[in-house]
Amino acid sequence: MNERKVRVAVNGYGVIGKRIADAVAAQADMELVGVADVITDWRIKVAREKDYPLYAATPQALVEMRAAGIPVAGNLDDLLGKVDIIADATPKKIASKNLDLYRAAGVKAIFQGGEKHELTGHSFVAQANYATALGRNVTRVVSCNTTSIVRTLGALKQAGLLGKARGVLVRRATDPWESDHAGVMNTVVPERAIPSHQGPDAQTVDPTLDVMTMALVAAHTTSHLHAWQVELTRPASREEVLAAFRAAPRIAFLQMADGMVALNSTLELMSDLGRPRGDMWEVGLWADGLTVVGNELFYNYQVYNQAIVVPETIDAIRALTAIEEDAATSIQKTDAALGLVRDFVPVSTSVTA
Amino acid sequence: MNERKVRVAVNGYGVIGKRIADAVAAQADMELVGVADVITDWRIKVAREKDYPLYAATPQALVEMRAAGIPVAGNLDDLLGKVDIIADATPKKIASKNLDLYRAAGVKAIFQGGEKHELTGHSFVAQANYATALGRNVTRVVSCNTTSIVRTLGALKQAGLLGKARGVLVRRATDPWESDHAGVMNTVVPERAIPSHQGPDAQTVDPTLDVMTMALVAAHTTSHLHAWQVELTRPASREEVLAAFRAAPRIAFLQMADGMVALNSTLELMSDLGRPRGDMWEVGLWADGLTVVGNELFYNYQVYNQAIVVPETIDAIRALTAIEEDAATSIQKTDAALGLVRDFVPVSTSVTA
Amino acid sequence: MNERKVRVAVNGYGVIGKRIADAVAAQADMELVGVADVITDWRIKVAREKDYPLYAATPQALVEMRAAGIPVAGNLDDLLGKVDIIADATPKKIASKNLDLYRAAGVKAIFQGGEKHELTGHSFVAQANYATALGRNVTRVVSCNTTSIVRTLGALKQAGLLGKARGVLVRRATDPWESDHAGVMNTVVPERAIPSHQGPDAQTVDPTLDVMTMALVAAHTTSHLHAWQVELTRPASREEVLAAFRAAPRIAFLQMADGMVALNSTLELMSDLGRPRGDMWEVGLWADGLTVVGNELFYNYQVYNQAIVVPETIDAIRALTAIEEDAATSIQKTDAALGLVRDFVPVSTSVTA
Amino acid sequence: MNERKVRVAVNGYGVIGKRIADAVAAQADMELVGVADVITDWRIKVAREKDYPLYAATPQALVEMRAAGIPVAGNLDDLLGKVDIIADATPKKIASKNLDLYRAAGVKAIFQGGEKHELTGHSFVAQANYATALGRNVTRVVSCNTTSIVRTLGALKQAGLLGKARGVLVRRATDPWESDHAGVMNTVVPERAIPSHQGPDAQTVDPTLDVMTMALVAAHTTSHLHAWQVELTRPASREEVLAAFRAAPRIAFLQMADGMVALNSTLELMSDLGRPRGDMWEVGLWADGLTVVGNELFYNYQVYNQAIVVPETIDAIRALTAIEEDAATSIQKTDAALGLVRDFVPVSTSVTA
Repeated sequence: MNERKVRVAVNGYGVIGKRIADAVAAQADMELVGVADVITDWRIKVAREKDYPLYAATPQALVEMRAAGIPVAGNLDDLLGKVDIIADATPKKIASKNLDLYRAAGVKAIFQGGEKHELTGHSFVAQANYATALGRNVTRVVSCNTTSIVRTLGALKQAGLLGKARGVLVRRATDPWESDHAGVMNTVVPERAIPSHQGPDAQTVDPTLDVMTMALVAAHTTSHLHAWQVELTRPASREEVLAAFRAAPRIAFLQMADGMVALNSTLELMSDLGRPRGDMWEVGLWADGLTVVGNELFYNYQVYNQAIVVPETIDAIRALTAIEEDAATSIQKTDAALGLVRDFVPVSTSVTA
Repeated sequence: MNERKVRVAVNGYGVIGKRIADAVAAQADMELVGVADVITDWRIKVAREKDYPLYAATPQALVEMRAAGIPVAGNLDDLLGKVDIIADATPKKIASKNLDLYRAAGVKAIFQGGEKHELTGHSFVAQANYATALGRNVTRVVSCNTTSIVRTLGALKQAGLLGKARGVLVRRATDPWESDHAGVMNTVVPERAIPSHQGPDAQTVDPTLDVMTMALVAAHTTSHLHAWQVELTRPASREEVLAAFRAAPRIAFLQMADGMVALNSTLELMSDLGRPRGDMWEVGLWADGLTVVGNELFYNYQVYNQAIVVPETIDAIRALTAIEEDAATSIQKTDAALGLVRDFVPVSTSVTA
Repeated sequence: MNERKVRVAVNGYGVIGKRIADAVAAQADMELVGVADVITDWRIKVAREKDYPLYAATPQALVEMRAAGIPVAGNLDDLLGKVDIIADATPKKIASKNLDLYRAAGVKAIFQGGEKHELTGHSFVAQANYATALGRNVTRVVSCNTTSIVRTLGALKQAGLLGKARGVLVRRATDPWESDHAGVMNTVVPERAIPSHQGPDAQTVDPTLDVMTMALVAAHTTSHLHAWQVELTRPASREEVLAAFRAAPRIAFLQMADGMVALNSTLELMSDLGRPRGDMWEVGLWADGLTVVGNELFYNYQVYNQAIVVPETIDAIRALTAIEEDAATSIQKTDAALGLVRDFVPVSTSVTA
Repeated sequence: MNERKVRVAVNGYGVIGKRIADAVAAQADMELVGVADVITDWRIKVAREKDYPLYAATPQALVEMRAAGIPVAGNLDDLLGKVDIIADATPKKIASKNLDLYRAAGVKAIFQGGEKHELTGHSFVAQANYATALGRNVTRVVSCNTTSIVRTLGALKQAGLLGKARGVLVRRATDPWESDHAGVMNTVVPERAIPSHQGPDAQTVDPTLDVMTMALVAAHTTSHLHAWQVELTRPASREEVLAAFRAAPRIAFLQMADGMVALNSTLELMSDLGRPRGDMWEVGLWADGLTVVGNELFYNYQVYNQAIVVPETIDAIRALTAIEEDAATSIQKTDAALGLVRDFVPVSTSVTA
């Protein structure tokens, strides 16, 4: 056990950053020292309501935030002087400059999946490669979709079932809060590049995966949906496959027979369960729709893009700071603190799982 | 002070009913004795997770719910035998039959705005006519849109400013969880009847209102938006009008200058504030967009249809049971228990309000 | 050559029926004798503007249509007495009763893909099985998605390239004109059954196809999008595969490099090309997105569900009436009359095809 | 009668420009000399298919278009040397620079409503101020929404019925073909400025109008919807008001009783009527929803933003070139050439109009 908590900063208080901040604050072995951003509107004011110490991410932001009445404790430099590690959730293109700042300050850093693997030389999913991140100075928590791929294919691999995996990703057009020139309307936009980047990206975490993805953007904001076709190493039963998924971390089952029939009904369920912001950190996999035909496996799952990488980021903090050497223990701590489950509601007798 | 808590049942655990149940459970002077419904899916299972006693609303439902493994405590009759009052949030057309059951059981009843005024002979908005509901056997909490109209025009009336009011209501197409043949897509549907029913419906609560409404359904699920044009009794300043709204209950200010620029950014704010289900019980009125030209007043506000009637229902319980004789006191109790505010975030110096 | 034109009726003047009527009227060897329906609104009035003889599909409709001022020429029975063949585009569940009427009147009949294969015992796609439909009394033109599958996989089969084919279908939620409780909003709804019915349905036309489909409904109205992964019988080049598609009927190429990047840009293109109703009868296949990796082929295409089955229906008329014995000749006649193409706009030098 | 046709150029072959080009080509007294743009994709290739002479709007575009295989006839300068007048439908911010070019070339010019009144000093709606545009060098055809306001309020003014007019505009989020970061999703965005610019903009055409507008953006692409509340100068009957609208140009009636119940059903009707691109040039006013209460008038109408300004632009060409001195005659020529109507389908006996 560590004598003191790991001191953590969060840079970028947007969709991901605000969730990381809350998750850090919820860990017994971590202290949220401060959050940095450049915004002056309601979003940062909510952070103030939560008594998170606020820092300006740039000198100009310091001026603007103070002018807007935001009680700023200092600059990013000031914040870096107080922490062991920083989770960077800033927009793309800002991160690489930030890395220089973090290095200069001797602060470990975790980036998000919008950045390239090359920036950090290490890409992270807790269940797959926690050990190789131990003590590193930097890593990258892969994107929401890539995380879901490593979790699910990793589960099949662990069970010795994984052959070739081919997936179609139906992505949400924008996050729900965006309202200005943000989305696609009444259409579906296929991504030109095949394979889309998520398949190769999963291989930055686990190069053994035989995975190809095609990606589409559809006209909704409520998270991503994946449709997968996997060749198993041998014919298997539905029960075997479900057991393999159940044995792996951070996959939870949705039951169509229980009325969880679409992306939006899942979100209503999360909200009803009282989860903060209605977040689903797990891959939500439709158990009763999963089908096996011979050695071919077909299934759909839901990726709640706003939250799924948050527990991975928490684990990455433990790995880089080496506050916890065992992946399973870190995952267990994170999941207990946040409240992850395997079945969102008790499985009824009428549901085949 | 009452010796014992009012014993409350909720019939219909849907969008409104589940929120009423939670709100009842949050009141110090009420006891949630049970909830009744006919469903067997995840929705009722969440109620079970909350340890709400479950009842079957029909004999057939009793059989089905037990077959589905739902631990049902009894029939609606059993539930009625244990309560003082029932909040009926069942779908339209079921309510009138229910009223007979409630009367036979000697249980007071509150219906929702989907029912007609004639069913109960009394239509309720706490700030407008709490007194006339005192001790009654039945009332109807008017619909979300009508509630918002009575709140806002009531505020102007209270300040002596209200002349003729004309509103255009842009309604959401369906609630967010619906996914089956539920919505309108990529269109706007004008309601044929002009005035739409909401204007006259507001007059069932306050017959003195000179109000006309036109209604449209638009292609979104995230609550309603109202655009109002009101003739004031005299030229007035923006500040006077805002003060009138601030003096009335359950109206809170949104600030565009603070980034709250659309229906969805408001919902993100509610979610960030940690509100249960991201609910907004207040009328969310855009303060910095409000405009006065001579004696004409123009403003937009947002009606979060899933939650706005919940505090009114709680007050109606107090009024009918006469557990509290004073409207303002009941409103204060309800709002404190739920957490209503006047400004969602502290007003910054950069915002004109 | 036939001495006289085939006399054709259309039953059901909805999304499909009105297009079939126009297409029949455009064929040199067919005469549109009349259209039958039960509606009284603008839809049938447009048919009147086109001088199509109108018939009431039921006795009650006869009364209602006349009351609404629609100049009805008679009953369905009257219409059946005047024609050789009828294209039935009525809603599901009505067709089987209709078949009895058609048989009793000695009129050949073509049904649409909403009906089951068992109703007719024969399912039709012109390029696949025109010959087996020759002289039959009834057939079923398979649904839009199934038609597209038979066309595209048929093209690969013809080229000796087709191995196992696995597709994900992202379906539109409702047709664009629907505005009443018709769609899904801000969500994606996965179909529970895997395989979805389209794969097996394609096998009713060509039992040799090794095809499995998963289906999703997304929140748009602008046609369907398919994402396919096909194992080829051998490694092949992109050019070979494109040549195979080009050699088959009713597949046309979309070029992302030319700005045709999504379902809606295709529809704008059709509209700009002056096509009636902006219809696309061809499978719109993204040529420059098509990817081959070893013996694996990946591609997306667009299915304009409102029109793709129309040319097939015209061919089915020729096959059943045996007015034309050769499939290729019928296809050529149909496509010339309607204006099908292979490249929607001239392929520029900057586009790889 | 003029000896020769007016020689017309169109600069900007986008949503509006391509429609102006087609409309110019359809006029007996005009010649479409060429269209200029900078694009190289399918959009300009369709213009080539129509045999419209193509010009590059900038020197750089000349290089790029030729590289893309577009057969370009020359630069904008070349085009200006061949025409009497140019319709500028380029994006905002480009127009003011263009005006200098046009002036230098001695070519009259018409701008669109995205530009400010000050650019031209004259704003145009044919029925309102054709006479003041006669022989001018430049004018601005006001935007789609403003055009609709001048048409409808002008109709009431002409009948002596117009008092104070207050409107709420529910705007479409983006045009249907846009697919890249173009729209708002699952929300409504109120415009902060009240009055929104359309009311004052109508006054640039007719300063006598007492008009105020509020504007919202909703989550659809299928044109705008207006909800109006007008104080009449005296109590009037529905029939009087409808007669006033019928007496004015370019207003056509939609009938809800005929099934034209929403923005999208209107578009389906236009498509069924075989209109080019499904365009509606008229204000589509819901006749049977129109309501008069005392001296207050309430009505909704639809503005098909992609096409409504096209006939106005044609008239502006005649006014500036003085090829036709009488407004009514120009309007009649334009409308006959394009095919405008007063009732989209024959009014049935069952419809109250």
